[in-house]
Amino acid sequence: MNSESRTWTAALLIIGDEILSGRTQDKNVAQIASWLNVQGIRLTEVRVVPDVEERIVAAVNDLRGASDYLFTTGGIGPTHDDITVDAIAVAIGVPVVVHPDARAALERYYETRGGLNDARLRMARVPEGAELIANPVSGAPGIRLGSIFILAGVPHITAGMLAGLTGQIEGGRPIVSVTVGAMAPESEVADLLRETERANAGVSIGSYPFFREGRVGANFVVRAEDADLAQQTADLLAASLESAGYPAVPGGI
Amino acid sequence: MNSESRTWTAALLIIGDEILSGRTQDKNVAQIASWLNVQGIRLTEVRVVPDVEERIVAAVNDLRGASDYLFTTGGIGPTHDDITVDAIAVAIGVPVVVHPDARAALERYYETRGGLNDARLRMARVPEGAELIANPVSGAPGIRLGSIFILAGVPHITAGMLAGLTGQIEGGRPIVSVTVGAMAPESEVADLLRETERANAGVSIGSYPFFREGRVGANFVVRAEDADLAQQTADLLAASLESAGYPAVPGGI
Repeated sequence: MNSESRTWTAALLIIGDEILSGRTQDKNVAQIASWLNVQGIRLTEVRVVPDVEERIVAAVNDLRGASDYLFTTGGIGPTHDDITVDAIAVAIGVPVVVHPDARAALERYYETRGGLNDARLRMARVPEGAELIANPVSGAPGIRLGSIFILAGVPHITAGMLAGLTGQIEGGRPIVSVTVGAMAPESEVADLLRETERANAGVSIGSYPFFREGRVGANFVVRAEDADLAQQTADLLAASLESAGYPAVPGGI
Repeated sequence: MNSESRTWTAALLIIGDEILSGRTQDKNVAQIASWLNVQGIRLTEVRVVPDVEERIVAAVNDLRGASDYLFTTGGIGPTHDDITVDAIAVAIGVPVVVHPDARAALERYYETRGGLNDARLRMARVPEGAELIANPVSGAPGIRLGSIFILAGVPHITAGMLAGLTGQIEGGRPIVSVTVGAMAPESEVADLLRETERANAGVSIGSYPFFREGRVGANFVVRAEDADLAQQTADLLAASLESAGYPAVPGGI
């Protein structure tokens, strides 16, 4: 199958009590979604589960078959609540082993930071058969096990790991977005949006209303794999909005 | 059963292509999680799915049995991609009907805004048997169907709906959090954290490292339903950190 001809998909599993308690504002959904778009991969589901082994195992087994790739974030640090590696090993049915390159990377990183201890050595543990993902920010590497990518939860460390994976994962064509804005209440142009989407197969149109300076408006985002189709549909939509009495703003408001 | 004696739980289903595409930074997980904590309800899972009926139906049916409450956000506006009400009606197996009070609320709201049209009337549609949740911000109400709460996706509208639900939903005791900070690498105090958590049943301790001004530290968050237990455990943890050579900062750094 030609890799350009099919849609590549990914799921994201966020592991962390701190997200579910509301203590920490998640940044990884938007960050990973945007990065995946550039790789030509669509994020099709996100789940957030607590630091509880059976919940992680169940989610991994639900998600890994449903998409081409599964990304996880969180739970790969040195403390007692960092159980992601163990849970994924249980889900896949492989033992946990110490990866020699991860151990070496941690030894180098901690050489001037107090040395490797048992807690730090936990971060060299991987499901058997895994490869490492470079961590340019701190000591502990990410982990790739086939189609599963196990990343850090701290957003700037996640970003460093994603940078190293850029261009390394097979994907399709990136989704192209073209935005058109108008000071139009979305409830007055709903039919127009629906008809424009229906008349252009392969296009989806999202409607994102806002309220500014006492007036309502919306940005309409036209998405398609085919850049020309996205642009043509956006142009058609802009013309329809103009006809309906709403000056269209290419690029959005 | 005494309502104080058991744990009340909720799941959150976020419906929206704009979150999965990375276009929009989600704010509702943290907002709803924090609000649920105050109601004495724990958020135990979050899922994000696209604006696709079968995906919404499947997620609703997975989640609604697993927690006491299910909250959804997104997809209740007037446009073609707003299909949450239809999907939830399919999941529950009831028809969609126009709620007379929602219709009346929309008629009032749009009286000075161009009048009710077909698209706007979509926002009066509810699964049969549903009650309304007041929307103090814009015209379209939220919807309660038994233990399912269908809320808007725009965070400040969601917030208005939550405000009206405050104190209206049965919960248990709120989870109390007490934070202790220290300029300690978490990998040097991992054993101490694990032992403190193990020795205090009913307590969970989260570890949230940071890197500031060239030094690493962490905030340790002690959570429990019993406020005294949380405080006592935090005090014990602070004393243990001090003994290990790390001055503890009550309240966190």
